[in-house]
Amino acid sequence: MLVKHGMNHLTVLNSARNHKLATSLAVLRRQQFLTRVLGVRGEDRMQDPKFEADADNILRAITPVLDPTRHKGQAGKIAVIGGCREYTGAPYFAAISALKIGADLSHVFCTKDAASVIKSYSPELIVHPVLEESYSVGDRDKDHISRNVVAEVDKWMERFDCLVVGPGLGRDPFLLDCVSEIMKQARQSNVPIVVDGDGLFLVTNSLELVSGYPLAILTPNVYEYKRLVQKVLNCEVNDQDAHGQLLLLAKQIGGVTILRKGKSDLVSDGEIVKSVSIYGSPRRCGGQGDILSGSVAVFLSWARQCILADEGNLSISPTNPTILGCIAGSALLRKAASLAFENRKRSTLTTDIIECLGISLEDICPAC
Amino acid sequence: MLVKHGMNHLTVLNSARNHKLATSLAVLRRQQFLTRVLGVRGEDRMQDPKFEADADNILRAITPVLDPTRHKGQAGKIAVIGGCREYTGAPYFAAISALKIGADLSHVFCTKDAASVIKSYSPELIVHPVLEESYSVGDRDKDHISRNVVAEVDKWMERFDCLVVGPGLGRDPFLLDCVSEIMKQARQSNVPIVVDGDGLFLVTNSLELVSGYPLAILTPNVYEYKRLVQKVLNCEVNDQDAHGQLLLLAKQIGGVTILRKGKSDLVSDGEIVKSVSIYGSPRRCGGQGDILSGSVAVFLSWARQCILADEGNLSISPTNPTILGCIAGSALLRKAASLAFENRKRSTLTTDIIECLGISLEDICPAC
Repeated sequence: MLVKHGMNHLTVLNSARNHKLATSLAVLRRQQFLTRVLGVRGEDRMQDPKFEADADNILRAITPVLDPTRHKGQAGKIAVIGGCREYTGAPYFAAISALKIGADLSHVFCTKDAASVIKSYSPELIVHPVLEESYSVGDRDKDHISRNVVAEVDKWMERFDCLVVGPGLGRDPFLLDCVSEIMKQARQSNVPIVVDGDGLFLVTNSLELVSGYPLAILTPNVYEYKRLVQKVLNCEVNDQDAHGQLLLLAKQIGGVTILRKGKSDLVSDGEIVKSVSIYGSPRRCGGQGDILSGSVAVFLSWARQCILADEGNLSISPTNPTILGCIAGSALLRKAASLAFENRKRSTLTTDIIECLGISLEDICPAC
Repeated sequence: MLVKHGMNHLTVLNSARNHKLATSLAVLRRQQFLTRVLGVRGEDRMQDPKFEADADNILRAITPVLDPTRHKGQAGKIAVIGGCREYTGAPYFAAISALKIGADLSHVFCTKDAASVIKSYSPELIVHPVLEESYSVGDRDKDHISRNVVAEVDKWMERFDCLVVGPGLGRDPFLLDCVSEIMKQARQSNVPIVVDGDGLFLVTNSLELVSGYPLAILTPNVYEYKRLVQKVLNCEVNDQDAHGQLLLLAKQIGGVTILRKGKSDLVSDGEIVKSVSIYGSPRRCGGQGDILSGSVAVFLSWARQCILADEGNLSISPTNPTILGCIAGSALLRKAASLAFENRKRSTLTTDIIECLGISLEDICPAC
């Protein structure tokens, strides 16, 4: 890839100056620079074929057959906890992605400021303006407002197949305290939780919220993973043993599942490690992580339904639904991103990728 | 150009009235009128081939290779300071153009009134409702609100590759005072600043904000340029020596880069002058200047990255990243406007041109 692009660069510069030696050196320097600053060699070590997941078969195995006898809600009810004064796009991307993949209902619990904007993005979402930020709450009211916020979400909790905590959540201390309580309620109700974005900021500082909860999935990017490793393992990220370090990290947090996003996505529950290296897109526009969190929530729900229906005799491996959800979500996002990039190239935006989710899934397992 | 359109006009009138003499005279009168009001003779002097920039090769040289090992943000993080009670389109156009060209993240810092509207235009933008206008601030609160506004933007400053100051900023005195402080912070952090629209009104009255800052770019239209010339050179615009006057103006403001928008765009940093005369579109719908400011911000950021990666041995000339950013932004807007006009003719709007940015860049330097 680097060499190929280097050659393009070379050709361009030749046509510009007819100066082969200098441009070859420029290409070489550019490759060395990228290798140096981006640690390409380290990342390449993660692409060990023996760890590669059989993503297409997993997607086929867990995606439910569309049956006219099924009722609204049976294909998945997802809730996103996120959306504040600053951020409205992230929770929208996560919630709408869940619907575009095939979930029946997608809720968003956000602040009043964010609610009307998120509602305006799409009439398909059910948006609850229930979260509060410090600036709108007096100190004396905090206790009862916090109780009300948690109660508002909790009365819906039993209906949800999965929560996504974090997209566009922000870092307001009062809001994060309320979200901590919501996570405790979800855990008591045995509702799976996918944690991304600012939810990872919260969890990294309060590991007890997910520690030892097998239905928790963390989806850190390169920076969030670095903070998790520093906090939990008290060391730096080691790309020479990326698999071993991820396995240890997941084990140390009591067997939660971690999806480490990167050139290859790595997934571990502290027992096994799997990678998803399907080529996606070189575009890194913000919001793709939100598509992933919404997708993982749906596939995790489907995997759990599937395991329940098959009474544990699932025909695929691995069989941990959180691992299956991560592999399926990662693979579908990569396929959709690749398709969107074919059409839009550098101008590919997150909404373009979301539009490709359906056709990408249909390509792997046709609806009928 | 004039003759071509004159001939179109002639054909139309012929078919309408079959009156050759009258229509020929009408065409002649039209040409004389346009020549008189637009100063075409003067502008034609700006199209001296020896000053014309090699825009396509500059676009190819500075546009980064798309590489899967890169992380979110490495292709550019842009912030637009603008958007008030009256104006919401301009900051949206600037911010979304940055993403459509290939930046990874695009922020907008605006007033609360503007924020929910700008958010609703697109979930792709990160919109911060932090600016305040006089009508919503009591005199006694001004000091601490001003400090809060500047602090809110400053906590993000180090993350930005470039600020765009001015699209839809308005002219509220309190808001402009806060923006002056934000510009001082950006300058202290060595963050480049592209100044357009009402930002130019601010800067023309407070030249010290940009004077002597080599990472400042001013993008005046014909009226804003006239005010700058009057303020700095204490004379009128001289189209007989457009290059010399622009060079002197940029030098007088301490070597900032000025992109003078016109039939041909002229760029100078006080050392050299370059022109971009690629044919664009005769459509003058509002908002095209906002596309330009957002585009220049991205290309300037890419040019700086490119110079850093190639350790200063850039294969193109000129090598000042602000000049390169202006040339690339001007050329791409003209190509996109031309393409949009081919399809939409008189109904071409700014959003149509934005939709053509990606394909226009792809046409010059394919993503892969």
